[in-house]
Amino acid sequence: MQKVFNKIKDLNIKILYKKEEIYPYAFDTAPIKDEVTLPLCVVFPKNTEDVQNIVKLAKKYSLNIVPRGAATCHTSGCKPNNKSIVVHLSFMDKIIEISKEDLTIKVEPYVTIKNLQNEAEKLGLFFPPDPSNLAVSTAGGAVALSSGGPRAFKYGTTKDYVINLKVVLASGEILQTGANVAKNVTGYNLTQLFTGSEGTLGIITEITFRLIPKPDKRLVTLCYFDSIIKAGYAVNSIINALIVPSTLDLLDRNTLKTIEKFNPTGLFEEQEAALLIEIDGSNAKIKEDNEKLFSILKETGAIKIIQSKNEEENENIWKTRRSAYACVTKLRPNAATEDVVVNRSKIVPLIEGIQKLSKKYNIITCIMGHAGDGNIHPNFALDLNNKEERENFEKLKDELFRLAISLNGSLSGEHGIGSEKKPYLDIALEPVALKYMEKIKNLFDPDNIMNPNKMF
Amino acid sequence: MQKVFNKIKDLNIKILYKKEEIYPYAFDTAPIKDEVTLPLCVVFPKNTEDVQNIVKLAKKYSLNIVPRGAATCHTSGCKPNNKSIVVHLSFMDKIIEISKEDLTIKVEPYVTIKNLQNEAEKLGLFFPPDPSNLAVSTAGGAVALSSGGPRAFKYGTTKDYVINLKVVLASGEILQTGANVAKNVTGYNLTQLFTGSEGTLGIITEITFRLIPKPDKRLVTLCYFDSIIKAGYAVNSIINALIVPSTLDLLDRNTLKTIEKFNPTGLFEEQEAALLIEIDGSNAKIKEDNEKLFSILKETGAIKIIQSKNEEENENIWKTRRSAYACVTKLRPNAATEDVVVNRSKIVPLIEGIQKLSKKYNIITCIMGHAGDGNIHPNFALDLNNKEERENFEKLKDELFRLAISLNGSLSGEHGIGSEKKPYLDIALEPVALKYMEKIKNLFDPDNIMNPNKMF
Repeated sequence: MQKVFNKIKDLNIKILYKKEEIYPYAFDTAPIKDEVTLPLCVVFPKNTEDVQNIVKLAKKYSLNIVPRGAATCHTSGCKPNNKSIVVHLSFMDKIIEISKEDLTIKVEPYVTIKNLQNEAEKLGLFFPPDPSNLAVSTAGGAVALSSGGPRAFKYGTTKDYVINLKVVLASGEILQTGANVAKNVTGYNLTQLFTGSEGTLGIITEITFRLIPKPDKRLVTLCYFDSIIKAGYAVNSIINALIVPSTLDLLDRNTLKTIEKFNPTGLFEEQEAALLIEIDGSNAKIKEDNEKLFSILKETGAIKIIQSKNEEENENIWKTRRSAYACVTKLRPNAATEDVVVNRSKIVPLIEGIQKLSKKYNIITCIMGHAGDGNIHPNFALDLNNKEERENFEKLKDELFRLAISLNGSLSGEHGIGSEKKPYLDIALEPVALKYMEKIKNLFDPDNIMNPNKMF
Repeated sequence: MQKVFNKIKDLNIKILYKKEEIYPYAFDTAPIKDEVTLPLCVVFPKNTEDVQNIVKLAKKYSLNIVPRGAATCHTSGCKPNNKSIVVHLSFMDKIIEISKEDLTIKVEPYVTIKNLQNEAEKLGLFFPPDPSNLAVSTAGGAVALSSGGPRAFKYGTTKDYVINLKVVLASGEILQTGANVAKNVTGYNLTQLFTGSEGTLGIITEITFRLIPKPDKRLVTLCYFDSIIKAGYAVNSIINALIVPSTLDLLDRNTLKTIEKFNPTGLFEEQEAALLIEIDGSNAKIKEDNEKLFSILKETGAIKIIQSKNEEENENIWKTRRSAYACVTKLRPNAATEDVVVNRSKIVPLIEGIQKLSKKYNIITCIMGHAGDGNIHPNFALDLNNKEERENFEKLKDELFRLAISLNGSLSGEHGIGSEKKPYLDIALEPVALKYMEKIKNLFDPDNIMNPNKMF
């Protein structure tokens, strides 16, 4: 293997291969359940050509490629095996160009979502996807998983903003998937085929996103209900009233309690359920929406309605909300987050089902999620060294995924499949869909070198 | 062949095969240039099972399948060859279900865009894509081409609203591409692979679209400029001011003159250029946007600004605008429309280039298009029986496509490739992209029976 390492060095590409150096790259934010498997090495390409050279070497020596961004996917999506070259994209973190006239931004994959948003905002523009870990999560990762976030209710997910990708394929070829134009039906939509493909079809080295004008203002409302059912009913009432908040998130008692316990800002109260609602737009638009919203919340039994008074208060509420998962991780030795999605009208049965499973298997579960999208994240606090708890957790997950599917939902709204949910893909997809997805994988990567054992 | 016809009859599927009956199905809205090639027959399936049976017969007898909706694509996208079974989807025109709570509508492929919109509007919902021929063009066709329309500037095209498709593949298998949920990253995005695939990968038999709330109101502004350059500059200024009109369309002198000549409503004036701008939203939002818009139009040299006073006036302007291509068809024996797309900032060089080509080849060209998207439609009036004119037209198109590509644009924003633009695909796409698209075609349709000779 030293021969391969030397070749990579000769290409002037940074490489790590000592055990103590590469250990951190053996896992991602998914809880560690098995023996840690170290990759062969971790390499740090500076550009597309470097990536191409690495892939060619992997191909030549029958090694695997595991692309890695900030590794915040929770699904072991960038977990290597012992034949893996981890391609860490951290040196490819440049904003290549941004155009106010064309409403586009072209970036390298390791630009963080936060940086991307900041750069857009300087021109009055807006990149809506806002995964909770946006300060560290990267553009490349967001495309690989089509990340969403609370604002997806109004603005959609990453896939709705990608218009063109440069990808290094398993063959070493460079593929440009689209064109930097607003509309394009020239050939098949390869851009969307690669978006959400979790690094299994190639390594994304350049991304062009479309941007939209930034809304003038936003108003955050936090309100409480004495039951999940009432909160769910309020969500449905808001949708039925045809208001489109940018965010329509739900938090259960466990989540509220846990946030206040470990991040005591006093902003979140312990109640049975809370809705976190953001509306945005012009002053006039916000006023109009807010009047409707307020009366719906009162009608549907909100116990208490708190509204932010300025942007600082907005950001404080969001910062606290974004700490939710970090707080859950402090409850017990381990934590895990899940990501299931159902029709909007099915969130109450989904959440009630999750609460039942939590009791049945005796695992602390903090439920939150993008209720407006039907996308629910149960966060679990547990001890994976406890064999019984661990087995119960596996059973709980199994029932959880089957519950989502039985409600006509799906396995993942924004975290992807990775290797964590791979065993469940065949309950979510019909055999024909699965077969053709596997054929597509085989078409682009016949030797299965690109992030193997993920998804399929 | 009578054997196949009888089998189709035995399946209780309506079939036409007499020459005089099938003649209308030999072409679409693209100008007829060559000998008309009749298909073998035209069949009218009633449901997915019928489509499946037809595809299985085609496979067994090595025949081709050409799916057909309203045939308004202008690109010979549903032109059959003499081995073709034309699958006319006109019996599959039902709205299967619509849910206000889930913001979704499930339809059969032959539901017209107008019917789909009307059904949505009854619940206060909105399906934004609005191709000019929306009264006849179908949901299936819109998905096959990812149709847009004037409102794409704000709302995107059909692809942005498709969430799940049922497709009959060349193998006869039935593929469900996604799930009826707002967000989904479970496996590859087959939904978007089929959207815009022009019937080359399978026949779409069921479509689920997401819907959005209908904006309260709209305001249409028509304004004139004494040069295309000034109109183009106004478009860029509007985008730079971060206003998002639902429509930002441009019409040149020839288009304005031709509309008023053949559809004399008095609404459109002969000037060098006009912008047709629609803003929508709440009263307050419209007021706010309109103030900004008005001052930009004045600053950028609009000669005259006319604004609609009510919904009736809005619709009258739109009806007249939608008649544009029909008016062009009356100028000379034949007409043809083209569809190229560039970066928003490149519309002026594109339009000036088109005007030069029009002079160079002496072909009447009426230019209009969705300037905000960079998507321009030159409409040509000519006599295709005149050999010289016909040759000139081919040269003009060749230069037009190369011009769009040289401006980093693409071959089609919303009409697709069909067989008309097939020869130009290799100037728009890099060889690697083209190669993998062909491999995808081969993966889903190894015997090339699905709409052959389209796209590739």
